[in-house]
Amino acid sequence: MDEFAFIAGHLSRLAGREGLGLKDDAAVWKPPEGLDAVISMDTLVEGVHFPQGKFDAQIAQKLIAVNISDIIAKGADPLGYFMSLSLPEKIHLDALKEFCSGLEIAQSEYDIKLWGGDTTRTNGPTTLSVTMIGTVPKGEAVLRSGAKIGDFVCVTGNIGGSYLGLKTLLKQIDTNKYPTRYWVDRYHVPQPAFALRAGFRTFANATIDVSDGLLADAEHLARASNVCIDLNLPAIPLSAASTAWVLAQQDQQGARLALATGGDDYQVVMCVSEAQVPSLKKQAARSKVKLTVIGKVVTGAGLICRGRLGETLRVPKPGYKHF
Amino acid sequence: MDEFAFIAGHLSRLAGREGLGLKDDAAVWKPPEGLDAVISMDTLVEGVHFPQGKFDAQIAQKLIAVNISDIIAKGADPLGYFMSLSLPEKIHLDALKEFCSGLEIAQSEYDIKLWGGDTTRTNGPTTLSVTMIGTVPKGEAVLRSGAKIGDFVCVTGNIGGSYLGLKTLLKQIDTNKYPTRYWVDRYHVPQPAFALRAGFRTFANATIDVSDGLLADAEHLARASNVCIDLNLPAIPLSAASTAWVLAQQDQQGARLALATGGDDYQVVMCVSEAQVPSLKKQAARSKVKLTVIGKVVTGAGLICRGRLGETLRVPKPGYKHF
Repeated sequence: MDEFAFIAGHLSRLAGREGLGLKDDAAVWKPPEGLDAVISMDTLVEGVHFPQGKFDAQIAQKLIAVNISDIIAKGADPLGYFMSLSLPEKIHLDALKEFCSGLEIAQSEYDIKLWGGDTTRTNGPTTLSVTMIGTVPKGEAVLRSGAKIGDFVCVTGNIGGSYLGLKTLLKQIDTNKYPTRYWVDRYHVPQPAFALRAGFRTFANATIDVSDGLLADAEHLARASNVCIDLNLPAIPLSAASTAWVLAQQDQQGARLALATGGDDYQVVMCVSEAQVPSLKKQAARSKVKLTVIGKVVTGAGLICRGRLGETLRVPKPGYKHF
Repeated sequence: MDEFAFIAGHLSRLAGREGLGLKDDAAVWKPPEGLDAVISMDTLVEGVHFPQGKFDAQIAQKLIAVNISDIIAKGADPLGYFMSLSLPEKIHLDALKEFCSGLEIAQSEYDIKLWGGDTTRTNGPTTLSVTMIGTVPKGEAVLRSGAKIGDFVCVTGNIGGSYLGLKTLLKQIDTNKYPTRYWVDRYHVPQPAFALRAGFRTFANATIDVSDGLLADAEHLARASNVCIDLNLPAIPLSAASTAWVLAQQDQQGARLALATGGDDYQVVMCVSEAQVPSLKKQAARSKVKLTVIGKVVTGAGLICRGRLGETLRVPKPGYKHF
């Protein structure tokens, strides 16, 4: 069976009304009144963002999740996406079927539909690109630039699991000593705090998606807001498995720093006025999203990261990671 | 100088207000009331859609033009775009600068701005993807599915120049005998009928962007509209250079068929009621867009292509083309 016909058949079942059955030149979307559109684009390249030869449901879920992360970080509700698939000849129909089933899982999890895209051949690695469209009540998109002096800095979920998953894939962690499968799953299938997206737009002054690394992204936010973010390294939330890994390292502070700079977390860092923190915490609890206060917004520029005794730490640059 | 910083610097100057200086997780667009959004996504892969090693202003112009073609074919006005650049390590800063200057030319030609995107590394060929957003008055997007029995079938511009450009690049045409540079430029930098976009939405019942090949795309339109398109091969418009090439071929009808199935034209085929044809022609003349009647919509299904004497021709499938 022709691969492109196969993909067209599978993808058309994932299409929303806006996609016109994926049978026209473009999608037509009727933006509802009173809403702004929030739009992001993220690309995953085989051998750079996921392992060589891996093409399955998890990769589809990752492709969607990294884009969902950008959209919800702005407080928006995702609606639909466009996907570009550049596929080498060697891909099997079974892998494509798996990939489409991953899209289906992600579509149902995030309540989105496929609106369009393009499928092409490549002589190189599989290259996947998604443009996602969401909406937010007019004027309520949360930017990086709104942090105010005195705000509390919070983060969703746990940090560092994805980094330990990558280390596992690179064979730098003993798979007999740790629940490495859990970390690898976090690396392959990020879990953005989808349920708390309305909380971000209601309570946060500034937000950023954690993709480069918690410390790097907190610094990006600080610079966009012309403030300084003062973070407490031991407060950064870790899973039980990641805590166990930290405790087993000789340099525990270095280990915590590695997790805080590893990246690929796809959680949200936000700045919230002290008065709003209790309401945000309540909404997070209702949404079953872990929320942790990790620092404060102060005057100055950039980032301060403090250790167990309040001492200022030298922060290493997040490294460029690939296979 | 760091390549990603270089790109970020150059691209930020191309950004529209919606792109938030390309410094946030997403773009925020406030859709104007009374308009629908029309959105398309097209990808170009080095070695598949453009020659290995070519990365310059023309490639940027092609990347934008193929997406503009989809948007204007639906009668929409383009506004902004998202761009994913997956770049191999070997790309030089000078080539990147050239590429950005091509984006600038295209942005000015089509009155659009950059709203966002992603830049990644790849171990394979340069891979470029654009998602373009345009608007059309509510309910006026022209689809493939609206053709009516009795409609005239028209096409913008000339057909086949891009095919002859590709043949030139593949060294299948004598560059001393023909103005091949003109064809190669058409292949690298398509010229969509941007100026006539309002004419499409005002006068056409159905439209399609010609990318696969004029005959294949006319058939797509016919199938989407549940009609038959009856085309007159000798009526298909060619440039003077392409006509000279046809006349020099032993099988002239075969040569015309090759041009009509070659693809990459990025013109618009449309179905227009007979009563509207004079108004559309007037608007085309005012817009300086060549417009040619090439057939009629009749009852039946699919495509009929007729030769000089009205005889029905066997239509070859458009071939898959690559370097």
